[in-house]
Order: sequence, then C-alpha cells, then structure tokens
Amino acid sequence: MAEFRFELLGADGAARRGRLHTAHGTAETPAFMPVGTAGTVKGMLPEHVAGTGAEIVLGNTYHLMLRPGASRVEALGGLHRFMGWPGPILTDSGGFQVMSLGSLRTMSEEGVTFRSHIDGSAHKLTPERSTAIQDDLDATISMVLDECTPWPVEEAAAADSMRLSMRWAERSRAAFRARPGYGQFGIVQGSVFPDLRAESAAALGAIGFEGYAVGGLAVGEGQQAMFDTLDVATPALPDDKPRYLMGVGRPSDIVGAVARGVDMFDCVLPTRSGRTGKAFVPGGELNIRNARHAGADRPLDPDCACPACRGFSRAYLHHLFKAGEMLGPILLTWHNLRHFQDLMRDIRTAVEGGGFGVYRRDRAAAEAAFDPHEA
Amino acid sequence: MAEFRFELLGADGAARRGRLHTAHGTAETPAFMPVGTAGTVKGMLPEHVAGTGAEIVLGNTYHLMLRPGASRVEALGGLHRFMGWPGPILTDSGGFQVMSLGSLRTMSEEGVTFRSHIDGSAHKLTPERSTAIQDDLDATISMVLDECTPWPVEEAAAADSMRLSMRWAERSRAAFRARPGYGQFGIVQGSVFPDLRAESAAALGAIGFEGYAVGGLAVGEGQQAMFDTLDVATPALPDDKPRYLMGVGRPSDIVGAVARGVDMFDCVLPTRSGRTGKAFVPGGELNIRNARHAGADRPLDPDCACPACRGFSRAYLHHLFKAGEMLGPILLTWHNLRHFQDLMRDIRTAVEGGGFGVYRRDRAAAEAAFDPHEA
Repeated sequence: MAEFRFELLGADGAARRGRLHTAHGTAETPAFMPVGTAGTVKGMLPEHVAGTGAEIVLGNTYHLMLRPGASRVEALGGLHRFMGWPGPILTDSGGFQVMSLGSLRTMSEEGVTFRSHIDGSAHKLTPERSTAIQDDLDATISMVLDECTPWPVEEAAAADSMRLSMRWAERSRAAFRARPGYGQFGIVQGSVFPDLRAESAAALGAIGFEGYAVGGLAVGEGQQAMFDTLDVATPALPDDKPRYLMGVGRPSDIVGAVARGVDMFDCVLPTRSGRTGKAFVPGGELNIRNARHAGADRPLDPDCACPACRGFSRAYLHHLFKAGEMLGPILLTWHNLRHFQDLMRDIRTAVEGGGFGVYRRDRAAAEAAFDPHEA
Repeated sequence: MAEFRFELLGADGAARRGRLHTAHGTAETPAFMPVGTAGTVKGMLPEHVAGTGAEIVLGNTYHLMLRPGASRVEALGGLHRFMGWPGPILTDSGGFQVMSLGSLRTMSEEGVTFRSHIDGSAHKLTPERSTAIQDDLDATISMVLDECTPWPVEEAAAADSMRLSMRWAERSRAAFRARPGYGQFGIVQGSVFPDLRAESAAALGAIGFEGYAVGGLAVGEGQQAMFDTLDVATPALPDDKPRYLMGVGRPSDIVGAVARGVDMFDCVLPTRSGRTGKAFVPGGELNIRNARHAGADRPLDPDCACPACRGFSRAYLHHLFKAGEMLGPILLTWHNLRHFQDLMRDIRTAVEGGGFGVYRRDRAAAEAAFDPHEA
C-alpha cells in the first residue's frame, strides 16, 4: 500500500502544484474537497461527485459520531465503503461543530463535553476520543482536535486558546495509529496575530504531522486579514507537506490562498448555495429564483459541462426552484461543484505553466466587471 | 415524421405485446410511465429516468398550466425541450387534479372553473382549453377532458357523469389539432357498472381516437372490482389501438391488468413511495426507516442493477432517511422506478415467449410468501 506522501510537482511563485498519495488513491493539488457532512455530499451520488472532478471529500466527525455512530460505520467497513466513496476522505475532528453548540457544551483542559443536537444525549470529545473516532471511520486524513478561536478576540485570549490547541495536538498525535497511506494533520491557530501563528506553526512542526492546516480563519476577519495571516503562517510550515486552509471559501479566497502556498480547501459554499438557488458563474454568483430568469432560454453558463448547463435553460432551473422541486437543488449543487472543480483545474494548469499571475489578474478583472443584475 | 401507430407484436391470451410509434420515438408495451408532475420526475435527471428503462413519461396539465404556464412552456420550445425529455410524453387533461380541489371548483356542462392551489387565481378548464394547453405543451399524447366519477357512486349518477364525459370527449376531439406522430386518447368512464362501461367504450370508438384509456379506477373500488371492470371495458375497445389504465398501480394490479389486455400504465407509487422510504423488492414492499435495517450490510435487492442496490447497504439507505438527507429519496426513487421498469420488461418477455401465465403464477406465489418483517 502506498505511503502517505505529498509530491511537489512544481511552483509558480509561492503557488504550488502537487499530488497527494494516499492509501485510497491520489489527489491533484491545489484541491477542493466537497463537504459530505453526514456521509453524503448532499443530493449527489458519489460517482457524480467524482464526475465533477473531485478526488477527495470531507466527512464530519461530529455528525457521524452521533448518527449513525462511529462503531456502526466501522462495523459496516468504514466510511469509504459506507458512503460509496473509494477515494481519499479527510475527516474533521468534530471540534468546530461542538464549539458552535454554545450553551450545550463545556470546555476543559481534558476536552469538550456536549449534548447532541439530535437527542440531547451527553458526549465527550477529547483529543484521544476524536482521533479514535476518526480511526473507526477509517479516515484517510484525520485532523487533530483543536479549539477554533472565536472572532473577534484579544491577543491574550487567542494565545491561551492556541496553546491549548497545541497541547491537544500533541495528545492527538500520541493517539494517532499510524498506518501506511494514512495521515494526520495538525492545525495552526493564533487568530490574526502573526507571532501566535508563527509560534503555533513551529509547535506543530516540532510534533511532526503528515500535513498542516490553517484553522480559525473565514470566521469574520475579512479576506485581507485572512491573506495577511496566510502570509505569516504558510512560510512557517514545512515545504514538503500539504497545507490545508479549513472552511474556505469563495473562488477569490481560494485563488488568493493558492498564491500564498495553500494546497487544499473545503467549504460548504458550493453545495449550500446550490440548495438555495445560488449559482456560481464566471466572475460571480446569481440567484436563479430571480424573476429575470423566468423566461431565459439559455444555460446558466454556456461554457460549463455540468448536466444543469448542458441539458436545461435558466427558465427551467428557475421553475424547479419556484415549484419546490428536488431537481433544482440537485442540479445547482452539481453545477456549483463542477464550477469549483473547474476552478481548481484552471488553477493547477496555470501554476503548471507558470501563468498563475496572469490567471489571477484575469480572474480579478472578470470579478470586477461582473454585474449581478445582468449575469 | 412517423405516423402515430400502435404495432401489435404478439399476444398471450388477452395479454398484448406491442410497440407505440410516435413523433418522439417508440415505446415498448406493456409500458409503465413515470409521473413527471411539474416537468420533472421528482429527484431524477431525465437521463437517469431513461436509464431505468422508461421510454415514455407523463406530465400534469394542471400543474404545468399554473406554473410555469402553458404559453411559457410553448415559448421555451415545448415540454420535451423544457424538461430535457426527448422521448414521448403523455399529458393528462388536468381534470383529475381539478376535480380533487373540492370546494375550490365548480362544474358545469361547459367545463370546470377553479382556483389555483398556488395563488388562488381563477382558471377555467373546458375540453377545448385543456386540449389547447396540451397542444401548447407539445404533448405527444393528449388526453380528453373527462370527469373522474367519484367512488362510491349510484348507477344513475355514474351514468350522468359518464355521458357528460362522452360529450366532453367529442368536444376534445373536435379541438384536437392532428399532427403526424401525435395522438389523443379517449377515456372510458362508467364506474363499476358493466353496461355503462360498454356504452362509454362504444361512444369513444364511434368518435375515434389514437388510443383509449380506462379511467375512474383505483379510486377505492378494490382490485377485484377493477379487474371485473377491465374484463368488460377492454374487449369493447378497438384491438388495434393502445389501451391505458390511468393511475395504476401496484405490481399485482399491473400484472392483472396486462392479463386483461392493458398496454400502458402510470402511477405516482414508485416515486412517492421512494420519497418516504418505501422500497419495492421482489414480492412486496419494505420501509427502509425500520430499525431492523440500521445495521444491515446488504443491498435492498441483490438482483437489482440500480445505483441504490449496486452501491449501498440497507444500513446506509436507512441512515440517509434518518438523517433527512436528500440522497435517500433520490436513491429510493431510482430503485423503485427501476423495479417497475424491470417488472414491465419481465412482463414483455413473458408475453413474447408465451409464458405469461407461468409468470403470473410465480409472481402471485412470491407475493403470497412475502414476509414484510423479514424481507
């Protein structure tokens, strides 16, 4: 079985073109991972997710540990077999969702106790438990348990939070069961404070992981603060390991992060937007529910090869959403996933050919020229 | 362009094996038409509907006339292009849904006036208007406007209702714009009264249609009364035209109706059942939400080639429904449509080979042996 390995194929400035080798196959980077929260990318068959160009998907430990349960998934042969996705799967630690539970959870040095949003049952998530659950799920890539530092935050509180996450990272690593082709990623915290981010990156590098994530961003700090933080964080990470920016983001976020050396992304944006009638088109987004699409006998994006664009008019997609038909969310989810995968493909091609700078400028110009009322 | 034509390929007793030739291609009969109410078979892409084996689908005039509107569909190139289904489409007259509106509608000799369930707007459906709408939709097969006689009903009321439908059938025929490859079907009414059914069939035959439907059944009269009515109605219809039993039904209804000379069927059962977690399996139905499926590491039906059965365990399907995931209804709709199309394929094969009697007995035995708690 293949070793877990990040192959750096080339670079264009700080932007990297790579290939992730895992027990479950390879993924070209920069890569966008569709979110399969509860063991399904909502509304999509796995073969259709793969058809959009996705090679690696994300699963949510919090959702899966509560339903159907990690031991149930293990008994059924692991998450790959359960959800019919033979390729690599990255699972988060469950921490982010648990932190979002607010009054339903309490934090300590040991970990987090919380009540299920489904049935109110009590659960505890520690670095060791999170790692064991991800092992039960058979995650190709496990994430360490961390505290996602809230925003806004004072520097002292951000430092305390980051250092707790670093102690948890050590415990997560100790609990990780190494197997060929599997990996565990540490998560850099420290909010928008450069010294804290550098301290966090150094601490994780000293522990040693198969990859490194940048967490605690896209929480309201704004795109420039996110980019400024990446400017500090990514150079402090080992060159020969993949870098993953968690929960990001819009196409312009992704392009800017690739320019700063990020290799992997995940976000609910394409799937969640698709379910509510929002479609990504070159330069921006449109809402298919808008009345101006009611009679529009043209595709969402004539250059897109997804089923929504190949087979149907905007008028039809508009009708599906107005009529509350399931096929509307299905088709727009499909389109948006394809749009994001086409974006990643274009980024990879640009980085390979040394044309990433031109690509960025062209994209920025298209976004500046985008008129949401005319698109 | 092909003439609209029913080619009788063979028979086994009263059961017929045929082929419908239309402007939009052919359909092998006996045929089951999935219901695409509002211009979509709920949760399915047209290419996937076709992949189950379906060659002709049904659209609902009532739903489409209200949203997006018949003239909108016409402006967008007709229903085939709008919904991405190039094959034959049969549309109902809108009458059945309008009659179901209860206090929101009023009947007269002229037609039915009603209020939209969407926005309360006033509409009128007459034989002429229903036919014109179906023409706007570009229906391959249009249905005459009829009154679906309620159940239970006295014979005198059933006679009045049937005779109104026959006058409407004449008006519908006069309004029908004949085009090569397109057809219009009359609808036999008369409830469970043999004399009325015979009178209705004779009246329609005298008008002359491209096909004949049997309406007003599967409304609560029971399977035996339905079969008894078919025993009267189908022999009274022209041999060289297709016969369509509207809104039917369960597999055993379909098999029994084929044995009585019916060629075409439609029903929401496979799609609606699929959305609520009910799956058709050999011999009967099961509810995937049942707790006994929670850990079941085997497919719904090992002999089924649909994506739900090829790619996933019952435990996964159970999980999808428990978690309220869209993929659950998608996969069970797909499975049920495939199950019904496989049924029709098996029926056609049995009739072709002269083995339909054996097929019926084997099926009946499997249904008798079916244990819903063990399946």
